[in-house]
Amino acid sequence: MHKLLLLAALFPAPAFAQAGSNATVTPYQAVDPMIGTGGEGHTYPGATAPFGMVQLSPDTDASCEIRECYGHAAGYRYDDPTIQGFSHTHFSGAGHSDLGDVLVMPQAGDTVQMDAGDPKQPGSGYRSRFSHDSETAAPGYYAVTLADSGIRAELTAGTRVGVHRYTFPAGKAAHLLIDLRTSLYNYPGKILWSGLHMHADGTLTGFRETRGWAPGRKLYFAMRFSKPLKSHAFVDRDENVKYRGFQGPGRGSDELAEKLGRALEARLDFGKVDGPLEVRVALSGVDEAGAIANLDAEAGSFDQVRAATQTAWQKALGAVEIDAPAPMRTNIYTALYHTLLAPSVWSDADGRYRGPDDQVHQAKDFTFRSTFSLWDTFRAEHPLLTLIQPEKTNSDIVNSLLASQKYSPQGILPVWQFAGRETWTMIGYHAVPVIADAYMKGIRGFDADAALDAMVASATYAPYGGLGDYMRLGYVPIDKEPEAASKTVEYAYDDWTIARMARAMGKDAIADRFEKRAGYWRNSFDTKSGWLRARKSDGDFRTPFDPAAINYGSDYTEGNAWQYSWFVPQDQAGLFRILGGDAKTIAKLDAMFDYDLSGVDYSHAEDIAGLIGQYIHGNEPSHHVAYLYDYAGAPWRTQERLAQIVDSQYKPTPDGLAGNDDLGQMSAWLVFTALGFYPVAPGSNQYVIGRPFVDHAAINLPNGKRFEITVDGLSPANRYIGSVTLNGKPLARTWLTDAEIRSGGELHFTMQATPNKQWGTAKSARPFSMSGTLQR
Amino acid sequence: MHKLLLLAALFPAPAFAQAGSNATVTPYQAVDPMIGTGGEGHTYPGATAPFGMVQLSPDTDASCEIRECYGHAAGYRYDDPTIQGFSHTHFSGAGHSDLGDVLVMPQAGDTVQMDAGDPKQPGSGYRSRFSHDSETAAPGYYAVTLADSGIRAELTAGTRVGVHRYTFPAGKAAHLLIDLRTSLYNYPGKILWSGLHMHADGTLTGFRETRGWAPGRKLYFAMRFSKPLKSHAFVDRDENVKYRGFQGPGRGSDELAEKLGRALEARLDFGKVDGPLEVRVALSGVDEAGAIANLDAEAGSFDQVRAATQTAWQKALGAVEIDAPAPMRTNIYTALYHTLLAPSVWSDADGRYRGPDDQVHQAKDFTFRSTFSLWDTFRAEHPLLTLIQPEKTNSDIVNSLLASQKYSPQGILPVWQFAGRETWTMIGYHAVPVIADAYMKGIRGFDADAALDAMVASATYAPYGGLGDYMRLGYVPIDKEPEAASKTVEYAYDDWTIARMARAMGKDAIADRFEKRAGYWRNSFDTKSGWLRARKSDGDFRTPFDPAAINYGSDYTEGNAWQYSWFVPQDQAGLFRILGGDAKTIAKLDAMFDYDLSGVDYSHAEDIAGLIGQYIHGNEPSHHVAYLYDYAGAPWRTQERLAQIVDSQYKPTPDGLAGNDDLGQMSAWLVFTALGFYPVAPGSNQYVIGRPFVDHAAINLPNGKRFEITVDGLSPANRYIGSVTLNGKPLARTWLTDAEIRSGGELHFTMQATPNKQWGTAKSARPFSMSGTLQR
Repeated sequence: MHKLLLLAALFPAPAFAQAGSNATVTPYQAVDPMIGTGGEGHTYPGATAPFGMVQLSPDTDASCEIRECYGHAAGYRYDDPTIQGFSHTHFSGAGHSDLGDVLVMPQAGDTVQMDAGDPKQPGSGYRSRFSHDSETAAPGYYAVTLADSGIRAELTAGTRVGVHRYTFPAGKAAHLLIDLRTSLYNYPGKILWSGLHMHADGTLTGFRETRGWAPGRKLYFAMRFSKPLKSHAFVDRDENVKYRGFQGPGRGSDELAEKLGRALEARLDFGKVDGPLEVRVALSGVDEAGAIANLDAEAGSFDQVRAATQTAWQKALGAVEIDAPAPMRTNIYTALYHTLLAPSVWSDADGRYRGPDDQVHQAKDFTFRSTFSLWDTFRAEHPLLTLIQPEKTNSDIVNSLLASQKYSPQGILPVWQFAGRETWTMIGYHAVPVIADAYMKGIRGFDADAALDAMVASATYAPYGGLGDYMRLGYVPIDKEPEAASKTVEYAYDDWTIARMARAMGKDAIADRFEKRAGYWRNSFDTKSGWLRARKSDGDFRTPFDPAAINYGSDYTEGNAWQYSWFVPQDQAGLFRILGGDAKTIAKLDAMFDYDLSGVDYSHAEDIAGLIGQYIHGNEPSHHVAYLYDYAGAPWRTQERLAQIVDSQYKPTPDGLAGNDDLGQMSAWLVFTALGFYPVAPGSNQYVIGRPFVDHAAINLPNGKRFEITVDGLSPANRYIGSVTLNGKPLARTWLTDAEIRSGGELHFTMQATPNKQWGTAKSARPFSMSGTLQR
Repeated sequence: MHKLLLLAALFPAPAFAQAGSNATVTPYQAVDPMIGTGGEGHTYPGATAPFGMVQLSPDTDASCEIRECYGHAAGYRYDDPTIQGFSHTHFSGAGHSDLGDVLVMPQAGDTVQMDAGDPKQPGSGYRSRFSHDSETAAPGYYAVTLADSGIRAELTAGTRVGVHRYTFPAGKAAHLLIDLRTSLYNYPGKILWSGLHMHADGTLTGFRETRGWAPGRKLYFAMRFSKPLKSHAFVDRDENVKYRGFQGPGRGSDELAEKLGRALEARLDFGKVDGPLEVRVALSGVDEAGAIANLDAEAGSFDQVRAATQTAWQKALGAVEIDAPAPMRTNIYTALYHTLLAPSVWSDADGRYRGPDDQVHQAKDFTFRSTFSLWDTFRAEHPLLTLIQPEKTNSDIVNSLLASQKYSPQGILPVWQFAGRETWTMIGYHAVPVIADAYMKGIRGFDADAALDAMVASATYAPYGGLGDYMRLGYVPIDKEPEAASKTVEYAYDDWTIARMARAMGKDAIADRFEKRAGYWRNSFDTKSGWLRARKSDGDFRTPFDPAAINYGSDYTEGNAWQYSWFVPQDQAGLFRILGGDAKTIAKLDAMFDYDLSGVDYSHAEDIAGLIGQYIHGNEPSHHVAYLYDYAGAPWRTQERLAQIVDSQYKPTPDGLAGNDDLGQMSAWLVFTALGFYPVAPGSNQYVIGRPFVDHAAINLPNGKRFEITVDGLSPANRYIGSVTLNGKPLARTWLTDAEIRSGGELHFTMQATPNKQWGTAKSARPFSMSGTLQR
């Protein structure tokens, strides 16, 4: 009985039997990791476990110069003709580059190439040509044939372990080259220090310290082989060393026990081997002993690790069941896959981790996770995880944020953190809404008092991003701080989530204080022109002003007034009153989407992709905007815009993502939107209804309940909602509460070809706004 | 009663009341830390506790180019006109340079200089002129007036804490500059990475990772101030950074909580302060938290720390009581002081330490010590410590060596280690005789089986220094390995000490194996010419050969055939037979001391100083040679040579050391020699009698017993031993056993003006030789 219950908990119900043509394709099979590896999606096709520390993936070019590196942020670029090697760390969809640690390249035959060669000259160096025809990519598994050597390369990964399996051409000697010189976004001086150690038992360990996006990042590894090592060489390719100290043992021989330097390579020789060579590699942010312990903690052959990870993926992907036409189903399951990669595990198997102070700490009763792209992921990625992942995952995330604050040199929550280190990328203090959203949804696996303290500390740390002036003036002044307009509105929203949580905890003084700050967005809003604008210390708005200019004087963050003037998730009604009411608001939203881009060139700007007029789906500030018609009483316009966005911005092809996936945010947007609702204001516990893009779906909730979305009559023509029922009763409003979803039930949509201009239009039907006529 | 006993244990008996003119000068007062700071002694005058982790001392020049750096190995050079600042780590008498970490310079007034200025232009930059008249130096205390600013600077130190006390001129603002760019033996690229953290409570922490003599050495510090910090700036002076990442909080301000980089400085502003500013600084090799904990572990003001350290020095120096003319007493007590500095504490207060694998380990029941200059210190420094320091100190040393072996990437004992890191400096595996000597003397605070395993592992690690060929051929071949002749004889001696210890442990197979190897010195000895010579793989001695050539083709280590042909401590009798017997041996020894150096220029060679003919007292290979006359039955010649050496090589002046003090070895030679005996062959438990240079002395042994040396008739004219008694009975032999000393008693010398050619000349009177007619 118990056993049966356990099995039921481990393996979610199978996908709907009633589904159509794709019923035999499992969620696992529906994922295509190649989606996003072209264009500027910046995803990687390699092997990883859910939230795994190791992302073992091919790098087609790790030698790029800074300008070209953006396109190689994930190491692999679909259009590239060669693979340089297989490295163990990658971001999924980041807009900035780093990682690509511990590159391994197998080589066959009598000579071993020690340099990668020129990416523009396939056939040079150790890089190899390859064909996409030889590639297989699935969650936790990647395979390719290296055409130049004929080596079959397969990759899989557990949580802290990556496993390579190389099948060498018969009769040829097997070698591995480990290149510690390569890195994504590489440039002279990036590698501060590195080391290689050959242990008596044949274990290879090493480390690298890099000055990259995260300065002074330390990564350790341990590597073991399924075949005995015949010989090895450790070499330092650094010509530019003024003083090397004294030579250690091994004079005249490279078969050293240890080599330290800034340009190290290891050549490993196995001779002719019978059958494939398996290479198990564990990472650690703590030390080499930690990497060895992580390697021991996840035992198993390539096939065993692959099977365990496949099971883990099936379980994780089983949280959402989808019945939809195959391309859409592939898009959604791939999106779901992408939402389950970060924040990834960073603590060792024994709970030790390296924190933002570069010191080693012990995680007690939680797994420390890092890779927090919070400016992106507070919007939909984290709210989605609260519905599809166990409470433990979400508590771990909060506990990781709190530990990071505790050990932050500045005493504040992470902004953009990976490998436990702060990078100071993007703006805001968006760990705050992540924590508030979790708390408001009843997640309690953390110390709420400590959390609120950490949130307040982050919102009041004067040296950060103009916060001192923000607190003094009520806005961030552009003459003191770049991107001041964006900062002002994002701080105000973050502040509102502090107020929400404080109020719920009965801490009214804090709630009052931050509720006041939640209105500071008004201080940077030009009520005359109807635009959010950057204001100077003297109170004047900065001139000249052009709402369509991007990066013009950096008033805004990766965008312009068109996108940022809509960012008041906590008070869209207040904004709409300033804009002159519903009609004028709708007209302005339409003007945004229908903006004529002829003659406009934004190619100089970062992360501007996926343009529908001035609506820029490839970047986050626009992500909630299509849902705003709901707030103005015109939900059928939201329904139209969503069709427009989904049809144009997501395709089941390598270049199928309109912009960087941003650690799951682009994908989480699709998962939510396809299900029919979206968290416009995390912290509000409201999901704003758009329209479904599935025939049938279910969320297997972390509490064991099930929330079904059933849809009648969905087709390309039937893009409008006719009616909605929740648990069989008509639903007049355009939003759902988190409690309604979390208690399980059925949301039923009836679709039709014409707009239903009665449904959801009443004032009482509109979603939360803190100064709205209907506040909740 | 117990209390009285305790006090008696803590405070050794006062120096002899019967002493002459210097009876009122305590041992503590007799120490002059300035001795060795001129010439090439390479000692430092600053403040340190016995075996302290912190050596807080002025650096007169840390900007030297590589060629000039040798003379600044300890940071301070007596002849220099300016002080650059006060840094926290220094070697005492090393022949190579590194350290000089965390330089602090106080500044007064309105402007703060951020660069040291040109050492050749006093008055430039933050360096300051000073006068030796304003200096005071005593164990654990140093003071100087910085003439340019008028600041009085005082330094003291506990075990892991240094304390600065700066008295600023009235009415001038007080500042400190922390310069993390400076280092001893500095050059571009040495500083791999560094960081500064300002904590909310005003604690400043930081770290630095350097690629110096020890590559990738990490050092952490924590600093607190007796006055509130008014403001601070962290700046990065590195112009050559390709990519800095994103700017952290504090835009437009240098008042950062954190700064990372490779050329960091901190400016600390205290405004006008009442009374002196005290700065407490703790170090750690583990992390910044460790440094803070070390700071907390040793509380106290400047005066309290100074007093505690003075008490510790009084206790340590009280192990030897000396009555001698003032200059000799100063020389001996200063020498004793220098023998009590290394191996210095490296583990944190909580027992954590960074080992040779760069990983953090926990010392259980011992204090991890590092700074092992073993090629030097196995000779007399370590044997001396077994007589004057508690068993715990000596066990700690062995346990540190064993832990280092355990965590060594190569699995071998340290060669020349500091900060837990191996530097591969000099030759041999001389941790082996240190351990064997301790074991043979009955020190048991370590795992003897593990120790023997570690010793065998070190003596059989083929990749190290030609050991593979040594084991195969019976000697190190010069065509494969430089300095082959020196390596062969030093390995053979080390092997003999393994045999001794193994035999004592009843491990006869190991004893037999290494006893055989102990005879390998013969394989590199040219019996025809009577010289130790380098031999090639084919068995031939390398030609051309010139016994007086130094560094000629690197057959020898810092020396030539004159010095190295005497290095058979385990079998001097065997050597003398090859040389043709006593008379020929004595003639050859005389030829060495009386060698005519006219026209000889050794200025190109390292560490060649203190020449008496070809006897080179400034370097270690000669150190036992004057005692060898005893082995040839001519102890009066030993007595003559010792007078010649002591008179010419030790003076109570800054340039009073003939060569590098080498972490106490030069000094330990003097302490032993002054007492009248010397450990020619550590591991033999024999001390070879020379002649005393004191009127009266006593060793307060670690077991609580007391061994007195009493001397009748000592004077410059009376340089010969007339007779010797031990505990009142005539002593006919020219050696003592360790047991005889350790059981306490009285060794009495009667001195006379003419040689006593009867005493100690019999074969039966001669010290140990493994192939001697009289073996013991």
